[in-house]
Amino acid sequence: MYFCKMFEEKKTATTSIASLGEFGLIEKIKENFGIQDPTSIKGIGDDAAVLDHADKTVVSTDFLVEGVHFDLSYMPLKHLGYKAVMVNLSDIFAMNALPTQITVSIAISNRFPVEAIEELYAGIGHACSRYKVDLVGGDTTTSQTGLIISVTAIGTAKEEKITYRSGAKEHDLIVVSGDLGGAYMGLQVLEREKAVFKVNPQSQPDLSTYAYSIERQLKPESRKDIVELLDELNIVPTSMIDISDGLSSELLHLAKASSVGCQIYEDKIPIDPEVLGICKEFAINNTTAALNGGEDYELLFTVDQSHFEAIKNHPLLSVIGHVTEKAVGCNLVTGLGQQIELTAQGWTSHQEEEEQGN
Amino acid sequence: MYFCKMFEEKKTATTSIASLGEFGLIEKIKENFGIQDPTSIKGIGDDAAVLDHADKTVVSTDFLVEGVHFDLSYMPLKHLGYKAVMVNLSDIFAMNALPTQITVSIAISNRFPVEAIEELYAGIGHACSRYKVDLVGGDTTTSQTGLIISVTAIGTAKEEKITYRSGAKEHDLIVVSGDLGGAYMGLQVLEREKAVFKVNPQSQPDLSTYAYSIERQLKPESRKDIVELLDELNIVPTSMIDISDGLSSELLHLAKASSVGCQIYEDKIPIDPEVLGICKEFAINNTTAALNGGEDYELLFTVDQSHFEAIKNHPLLSVIGHVTEKAVGCNLVTGLGQQIELTAQGWTSHQEEEEQGN
Repeated sequence: MYFCKMFEEKKTATTSIASLGEFGLIEKIKENFGIQDPTSIKGIGDDAAVLDHADKTVVSTDFLVEGVHFDLSYMPLKHLGYKAVMVNLSDIFAMNALPTQITVSIAISNRFPVEAIEELYAGIGHACSRYKVDLVGGDTTTSQTGLIISVTAIGTAKEEKITYRSGAKEHDLIVVSGDLGGAYMGLQVLEREKAVFKVNPQSQPDLSTYAYSIERQLKPESRKDIVELLDELNIVPTSMIDISDGLSSELLHLAKASSVGCQIYEDKIPIDPEVLGICKEFAINNTTAALNGGEDYELLFTVDQSHFEAIKNHPLLSVIGHVTEKAVGCNLVTGLGQQIELTAQGWTSHQEEEEQGN
Repeated sequence: MYFCKMFEEKKTATTSIASLGEFGLIEKIKENFGIQDPTSIKGIGDDAAVLDHADKTVVSTDFLVEGVHFDLSYMPLKHLGYKAVMVNLSDIFAMNALPTQITVSIAISNRFPVEAIEELYAGIGHACSRYKVDLVGGDTTTSQTGLIISVTAIGTAKEEKITYRSGAKEHDLIVVSGDLGGAYMGLQVLEREKAVFKVNPQSQPDLSTYAYSIERQLKPESRKDIVELLDELNIVPTSMIDISDGLSSELLHLAKASSVGCQIYEDKIPIDPEVLGICKEFAINNTTAALNGGEDYELLFTVDQSHFEAIKNHPLLSVIGHVTEKAVGCNLVTGLGQQIELTAQGWTSHQEEEEQGN
C-alpha cells in the first residue's frame, strides 16, 4: 500500500485481527451499522437477516478480488469499500429498482491489521448512509492471500417498473446517462503514476488536472438519480443495463437479450472534456475509451420514441442512437459517416474486413 | 487433488477456463439451472434476479475458502458444491424459514479446468434440486490462488414463524436435532488418511467403518425435515440457531442473545455409536467432540415446556436440558453429576479453576 500516501494519511495503529478474533471483529463492525430502511426487520446478529418487501425483491451479487479487480497500491481501502457497494447498487438501479439492503463478506489475510478492515467498512458505511441502504449481514473469514470482497445487494420495485435487458423494440431510442470513458482513463493515469512512483518514491505528482477521471475510477457513484428521474418523468425504459464492461459490450448484451440490432452515433457518445484531454495525452482514441473502457457504472437504456421530447435536452441523459431490426446487427456510425460493427472487445471495421478479403 | 482418487474416478478432460471465457462459463452453468420455485420471477441472466415473496424474506451469506474451510485433497468438488449450499440453507432453516433461492459466486484460479467447475456446479445443482431452491445469480471471476465460494441463501417465512436467537425464556426446554460430533470425527479420519496417503500413495484404506462420520464431514445435510416437523407439530421454537461451530459455542450465542443461562446434561447429548467408536480410537473425549467439533449443521432450539410430550420420544429430537436465569450462566452437568461451565472453545472446570486458585 506504499502508493496510498499519495492520496491519504495512513494510520499507524496495527491491531492484529487474531487479537480481536472473528466475533470481536463482527461486534466492532456491528457497532457502526444500525438498520434504517423500513423494510429491514432484522440486520446483523442472527443466522439470517429478515426483510419485509411489499413489492418485488431484486438481488444481485459481485466479487471483488485483489490483484484482479483492484490494486491496493493506489486504491485506498475506504474507497474500495465504497466502490464495492457502488458496483452492486448499480446492478439494482439497472433493474429500475431501488436498493434497500446489502450483505458484505470479506476474506482477508493476516497481513491486514484491524485498522485496515475498519477503513474498508468506513467506506462501506459511507456508501450505505449516502444511498440509504442497510448492511444486514455478511461473513468474515481468513484468506491465505489478499483480500476478497463479496457484496450482495437487495432492492425492491413494483412489478410494472422492473426493467429487464430483454424488452428493447425496433425504433426505440438508445440513451446513456452521464459520460463515458472516465474510469478507464483514470486507471491509465494511476497505472502511469504507480510506475513513476516505483522508480522515484519521492515524486509528488500533481494529479489535479486528472481529478475527475481518477475519482471516476477510485470513487464511482451509481445512478440512483437516474432511476428517480425516470420515475418523475413517468418513463419505464423498455430495457436497461449498467455499464460495467464498456458501452460496446453492454449494447451487445441488450441487443442479444432483446433480439434486436442497434445503431449508435460516435458524435453522440458523451465524453467529459477532461477525459478527451487525457485520451490525447495517452494517444488513446476517445471513442475506444468510451466503448471498451468499462467501470463507468452509468445506465444504458432504451425508451419508446414518444419520450424523445422529455429527455432530449436533459443534462444527465444523451440519446446516442436507436434500436434496429436484429438482422442489421449492432453498429457505430463514425463522425465521418462510416458504419462499423460493434464487438464486445472493440469493433470490427467492415472496410478492413473487405480489404483483407480482397 | 491427488487424494480424491480414494473417493472417485477423476475425469481426464481439461478444458481451460480461458478457452471458454467468463460469458461462456456463465452460459454453460446457466444451461443446467432453470427456475422452479414459484417465487423466482427471473433467475440468471439479467443485472439482478427478481423474486416475489408474499411473506417475509430471510437472507444469509457465507464464504468458503480453500485452505481455510476445505481441503481439496480429500474433498471432491461435487461434494464441496453440495456442502457450500448446505452450510447456507442451514442458516435459513435456523430462522424456521424455508429456502427458495441461492446465489453462488466463485473466484477460481486458472489451475482448475472447466471440468472442475462443472463438478462443483453439479454438486450445487444436486443440492438445489434436492432442497427445491433455485440458483438465481452469482459471479464468476479469477482468483490468484485457490478457490473461494460465496453463497447467499434467500428464504421466506410467515412473520409469526420466524425464530430468532433471542427469544429463549427461563424453563424452556433445550432441544437438538440428529446427533453431534460426527462431522468433526470424520475430519479426524480424513486427516489421518491424508497423512498415511502422503507416505504411501498406494495405500487403499477401508473407510467403510467410518462411513457415517465421513459423510457428515463431506456431504452434510441441512435440516429442512426439522422445520417441517415443527410446523406439523404446531411448535414455534422460542429461539433457534444452527450448529456450525459446536454445541457449546451455539448455546452461548442463544444464551447471550436471549439474556438467559442454560443447563444441559452430558448424558442427553446425542452421539452416534460409530462416532463413539472413532472417539475411542482417536482418544478424543466424545463430549468434547460434540461440544466443540462443529460442522454438524443440526438445529439447536428452545421450546416452551408445554411441548415436552410432543417431542420427548421423537427419534429426530433430543431434549438435552433447560433454560435457566442468566445469573446461573451456561453449564454442563456431567454423567458423574459435576457442574462444568461451558465456554466457546471447550469448557472451564470450576474445580480446576479453584485448584489453580489455591
